[in-house]
Amino acid sequence: MAAKIRGGDRRALARAITLVESGRADHRAEALALIDTLRVDAPQALRIGLSGTPGVGKSTFIEGFGLHLTGQGLRVAVLAVDPSSTRSGGSILGDKTRMDLLSRDPNAFIRPSPSQSHLGGVARRTREAVTLCEAAGFDVVLIETVGVGQSETMVAEMSDLFILLLAPAGGDELQGVKRGIMEIADLILVNKADGDLKSAAVRTQADYTGALRLLRKRAQDPDGFPKARIVSALTGLGLEEAWQDMRALSDWRKEHGHWDARRKAQGVHWFEEAVRAGLLARISSDKAAAAAMKTLAQEVADGALSPDRAAAKMLDSLS
Amino acid sequence: MAAKIRGGDRRALARAITLVESGRADHRAEALALIDTLRVDAPQALRIGLSGTPGVGKSTFIEGFGLHLTGQGLRVAVLAVDPSSTRSGGSILGDKTRMDLLSRDPNAFIRPSPSQSHLGGVARRTREAVTLCEAAGFDVVLIETVGVGQSETMVAEMSDLFILLLAPAGGDELQGVKRGIMEIADLILVNKADGDLKSAAVRTQADYTGALRLLRKRAQDPDGFPKARIVSALTGLGLEEAWQDMRALSDWRKEHGHWDARRKAQGVHWFEEAVRAGLLARISSDKAAAAAMKTLAQEVADGALSPDRAAAKMLDSLS
Repeated sequence: MAAKIRGGDRRALARAITLVESGRADHRAEALALIDTLRVDAPQALRIGLSGTPGVGKSTFIEGFGLHLTGQGLRVAVLAVDPSSTRSGGSILGDKTRMDLLSRDPNAFIRPSPSQSHLGGVARRTREAVTLCEAAGFDVVLIETVGVGQSETMVAEMSDLFILLLAPAGGDELQGVKRGIMEIADLILVNKADGDLKSAAVRTQADYTGALRLLRKRAQDPDGFPKARIVSALTGLGLEEAWQDMRALSDWRKEHGHWDARRKAQGVHWFEEAVRAGLLARISSDKAAAAAMKTLAQEVADGALSPDRAAAKMLDSLS
Repeated sequence: MAAKIRGGDRRALARAITLVESGRADHRAEALALIDTLRVDAPQALRIGLSGTPGVGKSTFIEGFGLHLTGQGLRVAVLAVDPSSTRSGGSILGDKTRMDLLSRDPNAFIRPSPSQSHLGGVARRTREAVTLCEAAGFDVVLIETVGVGQSETMVAEMSDLFILLLAPAGGDELQGVKRGIMEIADLILVNKADGDLKSAAVRTQADYTGALRLLRKRAQDPDGFPKARIVSALTGLGLEEAWQDMRALSDWRKEHGHWDARRKAQGVHWFEEAVRAGLLARISSDKAAAAAMKTLAQEVADGALSPDRAAAKMLDSLS
């Protein structure tokens, strides 16, 4: 299986992703072993996180941008982090239908979000799928999210670059960006800059350029970043410029050591998260402990116990 | 001690805060018992989180704003969350010196940050100090932070309102706001709106008003919030207006159920955090486990292990 994936076999890759998504203990052991094998000397893809709420034209953008990249001979994988998705009900079909041309492109691979009720679970599976796609030799891995809960932060923690896709806003449609997200964006793309919406797109771009200037500069940003630009997935306007921005930014970060430092820090972050999640899972998989957590949380909400007293009770019950 | 604190005895309050800040196990048991007693039927203060980097005139603002409130007959407590502070070296003296008039006001109580190397520890102690100040009948508890690491997020999680204090920016001094903070602000105050800086303050206010409009509206915000306004701690300009904003916002949130809902959610959040921290503390207090965490994190950073493999090893070693 590992050899097939390394050889770029898309069916083997799809089966491997199904394996990492499985919750069964024996599958988990196999998945860890497969990743142990594949991560040795795996090439690095450019991991691009992409967030955009429904209505901004995200599927059309991914299709347009993906075809733009495959047209340059690049191999592109598209993964999704959407804790609201359920596999039954046709979300695989949905993802492939909404990106019809890209899904039939031999240099592209599209995979919908794993169906997990818990965002942490979705994130872990997607992160492992990224590793599999890198081993399969993809040049670019796009990780898209609809932005439910903390999903953008999680996607940013597994990406080299993070892109926010917006639609042009009319005068009354401002207040559109979820809190916390402008802060993690490396590039803001205002989509639908075509036809009647073009002037609105230019105004929206100017608004966000202004807002970005108010944020403190980060060490990992060269001059001019983060930036906002207009694109049109329909006409192709700005797609090549956006790609050049992403390359310029990732090249600069590689040269200045930020790329490696970020990947290392991300690895350590996910390790610590996984230990934390594992410890908490021991509580939630123990019926009595899980019930005690729930009861104590309710007592805190009702004001009957202080948070620290409740925590002390819980920790005492575990020792 | 509880009776003295309820009676508004500031020395007893100071001693109780010293108790909750102590790391000794017997002190911790006493502190939990004291808080259990005091939180019964305690009045609610307005808890105001305040962030501002050095140079924005935070001490001057707190002194001016605090005196403005005590001048109206209100009792004001000032606490700080600053993980970089150390108690030795005179930070108590420092805090009182930089707010000379307020520290001598019988209706005010000023307490510097507990000295703890770990932000989580500082936050827990400060949160308990807030409870003690409420029991002591303070009307307003100001919790200030300099914004090291995640300190603003933690302060926002223990506040009813969160205020960001800024200095007027010249043309080249933009990019001043720490990422993540504009998102949690209920009110942005541009200080130093006096003399030569007034026009720059007005421009800065306009810039942030524009940036705030780009954020999605939250359920807990009435029309017009979050907002940016100019103030001068020196001349008193805008202090009463800012106070009216805070009252209007907190009244609206009380009426619409958001105030209670937020306090309940905060309580549950801190309970879960305390359980998580307690579980992790069991690892870090066990020398072998702490060493294993460190070694594994380094192996992840070096690329020798995947995050999930390392976590699996760690969790196995604990079971």
